Amino acid sequence: MATQSHGSPEDQSAYAEPLRDVAPAPRRSAAEEARTLVAQTTTASLATLSEDGTPWSSLVRIGLTATGDPVLVVSTMAEHGRNLHREAKASVCVGEEGEGDPLDRGRVTLAGAVVPGDDAALRAYEDAVPTARGMAKYADFDVWVLRVDRVRWVGGFARMDSVTAADYAAAAPDPTGAAGPGAARHMTEDHADALLLMARHLGGFPDAETARCLRCDRLGLDLAVTTPRGPGSARIAWAQPVTQAGGLRAAAVELTQRARAAAGSGA
Amino acid sequence: MATQSHGSPEDQSAYAEPLRDVAPAPRRSAAEEARTLVAQTTTASLATLSEDGTPWSSLVRIGLTATGDPVLVVSTMAEHGRNLHREAKASVCVGEEGEGDPLDRGRVTLAGAVVPGDDAALRAYEDAVPTARGMAKYADFDVWVLRVDRVRWVGGFARMDSVTAADYAAAAPDPTGAAGPGAARHMTEDHADALLLMARHLGGFPDAETARCLRCDRLGLDLAVTTPRGPGSARIAWAQPVTQAGGLRAAAVELTQRARAAAGSGA
Repeated sequence: MATQSHGSPEDQSAYAEPLRDVAPAPRRSAAEEARTLVAQTTTASLATLSEDGTPWSSLVRIGLTATGDPVLVVSTMAEHGRNLHREAKASVCVGEEGEGDPLDRGRVTLAGAVVPGDDAALRAYEDAVPTARGMAKYADFDVWVLRVDRVRWVGGFARMDSVTAADYAAAAPDPTGAAGPGAARHMTEDHADALLLMARHLGGFPDAETARCLRCDRLGLDLAVTTPRGPGSARIAWAQPVTQAGGLRAAAVELTQRARAAAGSGA
Repeated sequence: MATQSHGSPEDQSAYAEPLRDVAPAPRRSAAEEARTLVAQTTTASLATLSEDGTPWSSLVRIGLTATGDPVLVVSTMAEHGRNLHREAKASVCVGEEGEGDPLDRGRVTLAGAVVPGDDAALRAYEDAVPTARGMAKYADFDVWVLRVDRVRWVGGFARMDSVTAADYAAAAPDPTGAAGPGAARHMTEDHADALLLMARHLGGFPDAETARCLRCDRLGLDLAVTTPRGPGSARIAWAQPVTQAGGLRAAAVELTQRARAAAGSGA
């Protein structure tokens, strides 16, 4: 009989802890994670309530207001468009793009209620979805803003949190957000030796045998390491936060130099 | 003031009609379109009803029963998993993969109510999502089958229909479904001359200047043509339905030969 829940401590067998104390590295807040993820896509799944009481899942494209509220332009010729006239409560889910199992990648659900959108909302939508420019002139289309009052972010395995509407609205998307996945892949593919030095000499895993970069962001990078004791993970901060998309490279070079220096000094 | 609905006849300016009568070419039914699209993916958006009355959009992976009902394995540690215990009504939306605007591609919403899934349902899920094998052993996971009672298929611009549960269950996925998009792309990239002959001599557009293959399936192909009169579209049937994924090539070769023969005879 199944009595154990997934993700419980019993489930975390054979994960290696760092062998040396390392300074805790800052992470993006869940609110920043959510804002960053939502800013990277214009495709979302919309849930509305159909007349027969069925929650109705459909595909939409979205723009974003300045505070990250999704803007929808949908037709009453479609069921979701009619639903929103009857029941304003709705949510959208956006998923992080990438390869492999989509459940290993990030996704965010933004829940709230729609209100009619103004001209600024329509412009935000048309900026995000240029092919839709002019659609709102048709009588069957409505412009809606989903006023977010509840946010659930899932970053992948064991990375998830709820976010208040205020924290979500106040957060800014990570300026390196769109560049992060490519930079992480590049470091893993072309600079595995540097990552291994980082894991051994800055990440607390002197016995690391391999290191991959899982992700990197404006504050630092996450490494997945293998050791004779099993797999482990390390978070290492950049020297300072990166403030623009193009800044990840310089931050990674500095971190590599620091790891080499630490290796040379026997750290 | 906007009074015109999108997709209305007034909106179809400058579309060129065929200049010659051509035999109507068979198309997949909307039920077959829906079954085919759903069979091509294991990633879906789930809409459930949250405790506060908000339709809740989330990301899931799905398997399929023999009649195309989605199988879900979700945790009560997640909001959607708790929602399904309180309200069985739910829907999933699956979108066709590909490049470009997702609203130009196909998607299907399957709506109904979940019932607990049996061992066969769990096997269907684990076959579709091998990485999830063993998850159902945890106490927080439930296996659900979404008994479909309403289907809405959207194939892209001006291609959409509702499908009854009975027609959906009775339809079979097109065996060429997964191969179709690649074949259409290949024909457009490498055999544009053959497509143009088809459009001119079999598709009713003797004045076609270019032809692209929009899609192909077990019954035939759809061409987008340009003419001096504006853009048009043609559907041309294979000599006989293709019964296996690998059969599209031979069907296209036969159609090319037929178009060349018709061109030679001055048709």
